[in-house]
Amino acid sequence: MGEVKLIGTKQSFPCTRIQWALKLKGVEYEFLEEDLMNKSPILVKYNPVHKKVPVLVHDGKPFAESLVILEYIDEAWKHNPLLPHDPSERAIARFWAKFVDDKVVAGALEALKAEGEEKEKAVKSALESLAFLEKQIEGKKFFGGEEIGYLDLVAGWIPLWLGVMEEIGGMKLLEKEMFPSLYGWSQNFIHIPLIKECLPARENLLNYFHASIQYVRSLAAKKT
Amino acid sequence: MGEVKLIGTKQSFPCTRIQWALKLKGVEYEFLEEDLMNKSPILVKYNPVHKKVPVLVHDGKPFAESLVILEYIDEAWKHNPLLPHDPSERAIARFWAKFVDDKVVAGALEALKAEGEEKEKAVKSALESLAFLEKQIEGKKFFGGEEIGYLDLVAGWIPLWLGVMEEIGGMKLLEKEMFPSLYGWSQNFIHIPLIKECLPARENLLNYFHASIQYVRSLAAKKT
Repeated sequence: MGEVKLIGTKQSFPCTRIQWALKLKGVEYEFLEEDLMNKSPILVKYNPVHKKVPVLVHDGKPFAESLVILEYIDEAWKHNPLLPHDPSERAIARFWAKFVDDKVVAGALEALKAEGEEKEKAVKSALESLAFLEKQIEGKKFFGGEEIGYLDLVAGWIPLWLGVMEEIGGMKLLEKEMFPSLYGWSQNFIHIPLIKECLPARENLLNYFHASIQYVRSLAAKKT
Repeated sequence: MGEVKLIGTKQSFPCTRIQWALKLKGVEYEFLEEDLMNKSPILVKYNPVHKKVPVLVHDGKPFAESLVILEYIDEAWKHNPLLPHDPSERAIARFWAKFVDDKVVAGALEALKAEGEEKEKAVKSALESLAFLEKQIEGKKFFGGEEIGYLDLVAGWIPLWLGVMEEIGGMKLLEKEMFPSLYGWSQNFIHIPLIKECLPARENLLNYFHASIQYVRSLAAKKT
C-alpha cells in the first residue's frame, strides 16, 4: 500500500489521533518529528496552506487536517473501521467530532488562556460543552459502542491534555461528580495499551503548555 | 426512503448548499422557513447544541452542520455522487471544504465587519485565501472536474453572497484579473438552472446583510 510517513510533534494531540488510527489499522509508518519553532522544508512543501502538523504522507501524497486524515485512513485501509457503517451514525460521529474541535478544544484553550472575569466565563462555557459530550457517552463503553472508533480518537486528548491544561490554568473542568460517564471513559481509554503507548510524557506536556501560555501572554502584553 | 424536511432560511448559504445537494440527488423535501430572531421549537428540539440552521430531518432523524449534512446526503442517496470515489481525492475535497469555511468564509466576513486599518489587513488575508482556492480550480470546469460535486456546493456561496458582502463592505475581493479561474467558475456555476433556482433574490440578501452588519456594529459600540 506504499510508504507512510507522519509529520508531527509528540506534544500535539491532533498528531496523536493519527498515530492511534494507524496503529489500530496496523499500518507501519515513520514518524518525522517536527520542530514548530523552526519548520522543516518538508512540512512547508506538504502543507503550504497551513504549515501545521499533522501531515500524513502516503505514497508521496500529503494529507492535512487531523479529522480529514482520520477519514482518509479509514477509507484507504478499510479493515478495522473507525467510523460506523450506517450513514446516520456516521453523520452523528462527524457532528460530534466537529463539536469536540470547535467547542470543547477551543473552550478549554480559551479557559486556559483567560484571566479574571473572562476566565470565569470561559470555564462556564467549557463546562457546558463537556455536558453535551457527557450525554453522548452515557451508558456506553466507547462513543461508538463496544469498540474504539473515530470519535474516541477525536476526544482522546481529554484524558491527558485536558488534565495538563487544568493544572497549568488553575481550573477544574472534567469533574468526576459532574461528568461521571466522560470521566469513566477517559480513565478506561487512557489505560488501553495501544492508546497509552502513543502518549507523550505528562512532564513534557506540562513544560510545553507552560512555555506556550507564557509566550501567548507575552504577545498579548506587547499588544496592549 | 422516508420523509425529508429542511429547516433553514433563504438567506443562509449553508442552507442553500443542502438544497442544491437534495436537488442534485432528486430528493423531494419540504423547506421549513425559520425565523432566526424567534427560533421555532422544532429548531431547538432538533439542534439543541447550536440552535442553528440548516437542520436536515430525514425520517424523523435530525442532522446539523452543513458539511456533515452534505456527506450524509451523499451516503444516504448513493446515486449522482457528490464526493469523488478515490480516498485521496475525497480527502482533498474535504480539506478544501474545511478551508473554504474556516478561511474564505471567515475571512470575507471579517473583511466585511472590520473598519480602518483592521479592514486593510482583513482584505489582504481574504485575498490570500482566495488565491489558494484559485489554484484549485485552475484549468477545470468544476472543482472535482467535469461534474458539479461536493466542493462546488461548499464554495457555491461565492458567486452571489461574496458579491453582496463586497457591496455592503465597500471592498473588492473576487477580482476578475486576479482570480480569472475562480471568477470564470463562479459565472458558470451561478447560471446552471438547478443552482440558480435555489438562490435568494440579491435585493433580499443585500437588505439582510445590511441589517446584520448594523446589528453587529451596534453590539460592538455598546461594548466599548
